[in-house]
Amino acid sequence: MHANRTLQTTIFGKPQLRNFRAAVILAGNGVYDGSEITEAVSMLIALSKHASEYKIFAPNIPQAHVVNHITGEEQKETRNVLVESARIARGNISDLKTLDSTQFDAILLPGGFGAAKNLSTFAFKGAEMTVNEDIQKVLQDFHKANKVIGLACISPVIAAKVFGTQSGGPGVTLTLGQKGEKWPYNGSIDAATSFGNTHKDTELGEVCVDEKNKIYTTPAYMKEDAKPHEIYQGMERLVREIAKAIKQ
Amino acid sequence: MHANRTLQTTIFGKPQLRNFRAAVILAGNGVYDGSEITEAVSMLIALSKHASEYKIFAPNIPQAHVVNHITGEEQKETRNVLVESARIARGNISDLKTLDSTQFDAILLPGGFGAAKNLSTFAFKGAEMTVNEDIQKVLQDFHKANKVIGLACISPVIAAKVFGTQSGGPGVTLTLGQKGEKWPYNGSIDAATSFGNTHKDTELGEVCVDEKNKIYTTPAYMKEDAKPHEIYQGMERLVREIAKAIKQ
Repeated sequence: MHANRTLQTTIFGKPQLRNFRAAVILAGNGVYDGSEITEAVSMLIALSKHASEYKIFAPNIPQAHVVNHITGEEQKETRNVLVESARIARGNISDLKTLDSTQFDAILLPGGFGAAKNLSTFAFKGAEMTVNEDIQKVLQDFHKANKVIGLACISPVIAAKVFGTQSGGPGVTLTLGQKGEKWPYNGSIDAATSFGNTHKDTELGEVCVDEKNKIYTTPAYMKEDAKPHEIYQGMERLVREIAKAIKQ
Repeated sequence: MHANRTLQTTIFGKPQLRNFRAAVILAGNGVYDGSEITEAVSMLIALSKHASEYKIFAPNIPQAHVVNHITGEEQKETRNVLVESARIARGNISDLKTLDSTQFDAILLPGGFGAAKNLSTFAFKGAEMTVNEDIQKVLQDFHKANKVIGLACISPVIAAKVFGTQSGGPGVTLTLGQKGEKWPYNGSIDAATSFGNTHKDTELGEVCVDEKNKIYTTPAYMKEDAKPHEIYQGMERLVREIAKAIKQ
């Protein structure tokens, strides 16, 4: 392809399978009201290395609100989830409603409050949360077709709601990190188990695998002092585990 | 620190020097009116791995304009460069005016149109461009102190203007990629040389080193079909070259 192709093995060290097509769902652009940016980009870097193809989607809906990321205060304006997500995607993005699950082998969601504010209402309602009906349908489609679902940070709480026994689902095993002061959002663990799922404690960078339901989760910025290269390591590992699973 | 510390050497493969303090300058949040997000995050991942410390800055000024990243059309609204950059920085960001160059060994700028619209006027004025006076001062401070300047994508055009012989500077050697249809912004090469500098053709992922002036440049998304993992490779290499240079 070009002169630097050999760099891939030098820098990343592992062979690339490039054996699956991934759909990535974004939920805005910024940790406090959208997708967590380092998680989203790390996921795309890992997919551009390990997947044969990926496409990016987001719901064409207004953000729940807009947060000034310096002050933490709400800004009195309206932004659209699809339009803001397009900034991460460099414009290469489609409306979530157009996602055809038959065209993909895996669906992946990074974290950030967008998953808990725009894709669901977990940030506002806690265990009384609801899930956006389009993301619920697409997750159910992938699960019914025995395809892989990969989730980072707070996003697993969406799968917990959709697939928990309390919603008539099978109940799944997933991670949202662990309890303790370094995990400020660990109340999500109680919510996920209350929906009828099993929680597995993990450390930053680890991947929880539910082989039966093909659900892969990693905690990422659920740990408060996570560093960007540690986030990347977790996403690299998540995507590599997915590539290996699809190969089998 | 934690259980996954050993993963760093496994996944990244190279020893980390962690021997320098870096200041990163952002220019908004999105390729068409701010910092290119994949470049910015890749730079932060590489710095969180190789630098001993990094801090993020942006000018506290209005964006030149706001672009809808799906349609490419201008949106009738105002956004602030510092506030939007804070989304990439998770709120950990300071006003460029507070940057004290004595506290850092290197300054780095990712690309994106923000460098050519908010930090300078290159995107609007071409070779008649001017540079934001705060970024000009800080670049000159680093250069006078014989410290490293690292620039990606279109950002080198700022150094070309500031340090070119036509501005009374020494004239520097830098890269903005190369000529050809795969390099849609290659008109910047003519501008940079017209300012009194030397251009070195490079391929995506390569780093151009001006050892005398300690200016390190890499083309990144100047190449139109670049993939996220190739962008990351270029940033990893840029930061690693800087770490090695500072060690000497």
